Amino acid sequence: MVVVLRGWIVRQRDAAAQWATLVCAAVILAGCASAPPGTIADPLPSWKDGANKAAIIKLVQDTTRAGSPDFVPPSERIATFDNDGTLWCEHPMYVEVLFTRDRIRALAAQNPGWRNEMPFKAVVDNDEAAMAKLTETDFFKLIGATHAGMTSVDFQKLVADWLATNKHPRFNRVYTDLTYQPMLEVLAYFRANGYKTFIVSGGTLDFIRAFAEKAYAIPPEQVIGTSFDASYTFTYDVAQTRAKPDVMLLDDGPGKAIGIDHYIGRVPIAAFGNSDGDLAMLETTTQSPTSRAHPRLAMFVWHTDAAREYAYDRDTSVGRLNVGLDAASRHSWRLISMKDDWKVIFPYELAK
Amino acid sequence: MVVVLRGWIVRQRDAAAQWATLVCAAVILAGCASAPPGTIADPLPSWKDGANKAAIIKLVQDTTRAGSPDFVPPSERIATFDNDGTLWCEHPMYVEVLFTRDRIRALAAQNPGWRNEMPFKAVVDNDEAAMAKLTETDFFKLIGATHAGMTSVDFQKLVADWLATNKHPRFNRVYTDLTYQPMLEVLAYFRANGYKTFIVSGGTLDFIRAFAEKAYAIPPEQVIGTSFDASYTFTYDVAQTRAKPDVMLLDDGPGKAIGIDHYIGRVPIAAFGNSDGDLAMLETTTQSPTSRAHPRLAMFVWHTDAAREYAYDRDTSVGRLNVGLDAASRHSWRLISMKDDWKVIFPYELAK
Repeated sequence: MVVVLRGWIVRQRDAAAQWATLVCAAVILAGCASAPPGTIADPLPSWKDGANKAAIIKLVQDTTRAGSPDFVPPSERIATFDNDGTLWCEHPMYVEVLFTRDRIRALAAQNPGWRNEMPFKAVVDNDEAAMAKLTETDFFKLIGATHAGMTSVDFQKLVADWLATNKHPRFNRVYTDLTYQPMLEVLAYFRANGYKTFIVSGGTLDFIRAFAEKAYAIPPEQVIGTSFDASYTFTYDVAQTRAKPDVMLLDDGPGKAIGIDHYIGRVPIAAFGNSDGDLAMLETTTQSPTSRAHPRLAMFVWHTDAAREYAYDRDTSVGRLNVGLDAASRHSWRLISMKDDWKVIFPYELAK
Repeated sequence: MVVVLRGWIVRQRDAAAQWATLVCAAVILAGCASAPPGTIADPLPSWKDGANKAAIIKLVQDTTRAGSPDFVPPSERIATFDNDGTLWCEHPMYVEVLFTRDRIRALAAQNPGWRNEMPFKAVVDNDEAAMAKLTETDFFKLIGATHAGMTSVDFQKLVADWLATNKHPRFNRVYTDLTYQPMLEVLAYFRANGYKTFIVSGGTLDFIRAFAEKAYAIPPEQVIGTSFDASYTFTYDVAQTRAKPDVMLLDDGPGKAIGIDHYIGRVPIAAFGNSDGDLAMLETTTQSPTSRAHPRLAMFVWHTDAAREYAYDRDTSVGRLNVGLDAASRHSWRLISMKDDWKVIFPYELAK
């Protein structure tokens, strides 16, 4: 919420617009469902009017209005969000992969064997051809090595420090500046109406938790991510849990359905993704045996804006949306066109 | 909250007491921290006055009073509770073990090989001597077999049906009647003051989720339990996640510290257990490197009341509290004596 309002208030240039903004901000804070008819409240000001914006507002209104046939009790109001490419920019490369690359290189001196061991060798040697051939299993082996032996607190500190100092190659901004303003508004709008918002990411728990509370106001207990087995020690009266390199939950693809079942234990009312890695999350949302008990909304953020961000779907290895494009029309999932649906992409555009 | 108030209101016999009850209920609903001095609000009416009751109230007041040096922001207010023996009766046998025994027998006809395979054979043959020798690994093999191939929804339905029809051998009540009234009040009191209450149980996720929302007002996303790996299928446009028999997280002993790290990602402010299986949870609460940032409270429910419930600690195989008794004095954890600290044990006593 703070994130949404900060940039947004700065954007206004004249007093009338500021007044309108403050009224609208107050309405959002009070919960938009309670705004009387005729007010200017727009819970999604960075969205252009259209079918997608209307579908989000209709779902929230229908599921929260007392007496509505589609009313959903507050305890069942769950909305899930992929992170990479759905809440923040993932091109030209997933941020955690870049962090992992730097971390592997930093750890290489302590691990001389890596010079002769794939997939580590590819990263240590900066062998771009070899790196391009790494599989998802390879990546999680690399990512596992960065976690191994670390406590959550220490790993999150490494991530926070890295995020504070590394910038996106095109936008020349830290990555936490590259969240999507329209999606921040969606998060805030759901929460203002009693929804719990969860991240369901292929990224690791502690990578996401390092910034999710500040960037999205999503607390650590509402982050589901790839996790590693761990060992617990109690030595000299100090309790510590340290990661092992073995994946416990691979929270991508089918793992997102499993993660939702394990961490949430309910079918979400709404789910937002952007790639084939989100298929199972969207299927679970709209196609579970119990889905019909309530309205459901499943949406893909569709990267259609090469000018303001990136344009990609079927032909990329980072955030590919291929099977999902076909599934979307079959299951009446909605495609959010970044080019056509969003007035702005990043929060900092509002301050211009 | 409903659970607490239901039995409690019924208990009152005369109009004056009813009035006091309703005032107190209103204060609890409004959040006890805001009760003006001099009111009769008692957030823990089933607790006898004493050091343990005072310690709980002090923690909640100190961590929620604006301007308090020990103030904890709402997002960090986490309290964790073991289930068996902490929130409900676990003697003479863990309820999930009894359910599992019945379930294994029901499945035996479809699994003829079990007649010759331990640990299944012990249960199918009702061989009490063999059953007494089963290890925790054996139990989780049995429990895994009851979960295998099941969806969460179907498994929870089996549990709910079993709980609705099976009664405790001594109290002749369904097991969900055998929750501890004083602990229901603790749960409600923490929640009324902005705490999120989590169950952290060695029992399985879906066993606990089958009754936790109704019995404790704890939603499924705040249940941490032993979990199984799963497989996801999307067939004929139906999304289903089915358990495998392989344990993913053994949420007992050290696994409770790991479960808290994975599911919550914060050090709890308060933790309640009753057995050595809760040691790591209590250690994590008070002895983590970050524990000193806030006040912490760790308590064991100590089963000292053979007349009203059971008396056991060091010499039982069900809920043994041995190492924990020594650790409690070393780490200033508190022992809640059921005999001395609790006016009543079960909610139905209030209706007498």
